[in-house]
Amino acid sequence: MPSDYLYEQLAAELGDAIERGALRAGGKLPSVRRLAEDRALSVATVVQAYSVLEGTGLIEARPKSGYFVRRRTDDGDAPRPPRKSVTATRPAVSDGIARLIAALRDPGVVPLAAAYLDPGTLKVAQLNRIAAALAREVSTLGARDDTPPGLATLRRALARRSISWGAPMTEHDFVATIGATEAITLALRAVARPGDAVVVESPTYFGILQTIEALGLKVVEVPAHPRTGIDLAALHDALKATPIRAIVTMPTAANPLGSIMPDDAKAALYALAVRHDVPIIEDDVYGELCFDGARPRPIKAWDKDGRVLLCGSVSKTLAPGYRVGWIAPGRYQDDIERLKFSQSLACPTLTGMAVAEMLSSGSYDRHLRRLRHVVAGQVARYREEVLARFPDGTRVSAPRGGFVLWIELPGAVDTLVLQERALARGVAIAPGPIFSARQQRFSACLRLSCGQPLTPRVATALDLIAHLAQDLAARGARGHRASA
Amino acid sequence: MPSDYLYEQLAAELGDAIERGALRAGGKLPSVRRLAEDRALSVATVVQAYSVLEGTGLIEARPKSGYFVRRRTDDGDAPRPPRKSVTATRPAVSDGIARLIAALRDPGVVPLAAAYLDPGTLKVAQLNRIAAALAREVSTLGARDDTPPGLATLRRALARRSISWGAPMTEHDFVATIGATEAITLALRAVARPGDAVVVESPTYFGILQTIEALGLKVVEVPAHPRTGIDLAALHDALKATPIRAIVTMPTAANPLGSIMPDDAKAALYALAVRHDVPIIEDDVYGELCFDGARPRPIKAWDKDGRVLLCGSVSKTLAPGYRVGWIAPGRYQDDIERLKFSQSLACPTLTGMAVAEMLSSGSYDRHLRRLRHVVAGQVARYREEVLARFPDGTRVSAPRGGFVLWIELPGAVDTLVLQERALARGVAIAPGPIFSARQQRFSACLRLSCGQPLTPRVATALDLIAHLAQDLAARGARGHRASA
Repeated sequence: MPSDYLYEQLAAELGDAIERGALRAGGKLPSVRRLAEDRALSVATVVQAYSVLEGTGLIEARPKSGYFVRRRTDDGDAPRPPRKSVTATRPAVSDGIARLIAALRDPGVVPLAAAYLDPGTLKVAQLNRIAAALAREVSTLGARDDTPPGLATLRRALARRSISWGAPMTEHDFVATIGATEAITLALRAVARPGDAVVVESPTYFGILQTIEALGLKVVEVPAHPRTGIDLAALHDALKATPIRAIVTMPTAANPLGSIMPDDAKAALYALAVRHDVPIIEDDVYGELCFDGARPRPIKAWDKDGRVLLCGSVSKTLAPGYRVGWIAPGRYQDDIERLKFSQSLACPTLTGMAVAEMLSSGSYDRHLRRLRHVVAGQVARYREEVLARFPDGTRVSAPRGGFVLWIELPGAVDTLVLQERALARGVAIAPGPIFSARQQRFSACLRLSCGQPLTPRVATALDLIAHLAQDLAARGARGHRASA
Repeated sequence: MPSDYLYEQLAAELGDAIERGALRAGGKLPSVRRLAEDRALSVATVVQAYSVLEGTGLIEARPKSGYFVRRRTDDGDAPRPPRKSVTATRPAVSDGIARLIAALRDPGVVPLAAAYLDPGTLKVAQLNRIAAALAREVSTLGARDDTPPGLATLRRALARRSISWGAPMTEHDFVATIGATEAITLALRAVARPGDAVVVESPTYFGILQTIEALGLKVVEVPAHPRTGIDLAALHDALKATPIRAIVTMPTAANPLGSIMPDDAKAALYALAVRHDVPIIEDDVYGELCFDGARPRPIKAWDKDGRVLLCGSVSKTLAPGYRVGWIAPGRYQDDIERLKFSQSLACPTLTGMAVAEMLSSGSYDRHLRRLRHVVAGQVARYREEVLARFPDGTRVSAPRGGFVLWIELPGAVDTLVLQERALARGVAIAPGPIFSARQQRFSACLRLSCGQPLTPRVATALDLIAHLAQDLAARGARGHRASA
């Protein structure tokens, strides 16, 4: 079936050519402008097609050189996975996170740190109209709270959607939460006690590390691959080396890598979890935001004995400010309901009802199709800009979903310093060290959110980051020479 | 200044007569109907006036006998405070709570268990209209979440209101939470670690015990007096006997007793906390719902060194289903912000904005005045019914605020059995044992919510409870004789 979108048709055509050998490994592809001209396509269409091919690993971008057909065994210029680590560490709240949170609340700052989509890209206005209509029509709405498992209409809407996830569940399999953050908090509280260790991917979303730290848990960081997610061999070693209470993973469009676990890897991860009798806490917030092909199935689809606690929300697809999330906790249903009751009693009725109505409407699927397209294009454009502006030797992830880029700068750049300097000039970024409990890790990395349209203001901000990075790299090199 | 309300005028007049000795201690007051007839007042007005006098301890109700002027040193027929206990206990989730929560979600059950007010009594419809207008006008509302400390408009509205509480604070002293339950969870997480012990009043709201249990904390239960709250001598003993990480208290219209701590007792409690260097977690959810006089100041008003974490919400005065709460955490501000971020990231924007607008409007104060009046009347009518229908020897609290009655049944009645039987007949009550971590305590007690208007359906439900109680007491007495 041919795709609706020109960029998908182009990507498929070029992909075929590579598979057939018509485009040979190591060969340079036409420049974006040249191909656009030749084929009478827009530059954006070509950029997106190349991005799709990068995402699937068929081609790679080399800074200031262009696009090349990849050698099959080569990971190219994506940031390198960390060395493996099986030592349990107690994560700590860092200055980097404190600065990031403070910057969140400053409207004068160019917001490239936190992973928010622009309100125009989301369906916030439509959701607000639904909420307004409900609030006018149902005068008793809000007179009672909806104690766990939460609003039946929301759970029924989720049950219907879970069929399209490939993990069909019933309304009795869900508990409503305050975003995915509360879902993950409850999941961790259900399966681990203070002092226990849990596995996370490395790098991983700093919010997960904060939640783990605040609960007094330890983390074992297992390297993640930029395209395929958590390293199963390293995970196996970790499970053998240390008692592990949970595997916290983001198999679909992981934050910050944008990786997607292949189905056989998900099956293998689940089998490992069964063998070592460990629950899996699956963070699926980017599940609907993969750029190509069918929506990947969550690991929950393989769950036969209820050990997967699937956590999701509408914060990345509809409205972060509604704080509507959920957990499908499998065998931990009763524990999660009790913990939710004791932790925050219930979720607000109005926001839950509005989201339930939106999820049940046909327009939500249309919205998701459009959103994937928009987000893929936006990420591709940011990536182009970064490759064009950042110093030689910069490595940039080729995300297969979500809307963040993971970038490794050349030289001995400390991105915590970069964050501080950029913030002083009105630009927020997320520094690499906050994505690991071991603060020295990822010190030359940063995460950029591509959630805002690439306006001239954003382009100027990217230029600023590039120059600050160049400057810090030069000083780092000089410092290195001086001490040598 | 004469009161606006006839019942307050009548209560003041009778109170004066008692103080002057015109009505002597032990003397019987005219029956409600007789006095209403004599003075050309409604029965409801007289009931409320008597209720006010009971609340202040000047008169007492004796089941099936009527109202009497109290002897000053006598606690009359209010339920007796528990024997003191300074042993740390790990609370457990009981069948009683599980049944109560399940019944919450059944619309066929007469809801006398949970402390909810009727939507007609609350301002839910007005709040919904505000929310609808906001959702229509602000199309970007919900596009970002409001990370801690939360929505500025809400914190500013709370800062303005804190002046009328007698504990003036600024917007920087508040953190928005998902109801008071999340506030208390965060407070406990900030000051205690699993295995630590905290003091609670006995009896206390079962939700607090659940939160404590779920966090792996222990409780030391200190007896509370039905009119004046926590027993300071027993508290002092507890602080000397065991390392205590926090005092969790509800000084204003405590749930379930309806007690109000006198100001000098609050000052003394604060002084004790300073001497033993213990933080105070103050649950103020019923702060606006006292029946007479000025709104009592929270203990926070005495707080000089930031050791009081004041927790509140609009769940008892506006809309439980909005889940809008807050904490004024004093010196723990940074910890609470960080914990809130890690636990649930942020609160919903729409519900917070609507409540902020309502709190800032002049109509909120008018609503509160009306609400206090309505609630006081409703509690008085429920109390009348209980005294008229329940077995001889029943003791009923005379709450000074809030909308629950604490009842002690005569004989060896097990209210967990009573709860089960009543629920089988479609009536939900809250059994006494769930108000203590030591399950055997308060086994003859129950809590009745007076949140619904006293309709014929409710009257029938009260009759049912009375008959079941009578039946259980008779069996208990027979059982006792048989084993003697």
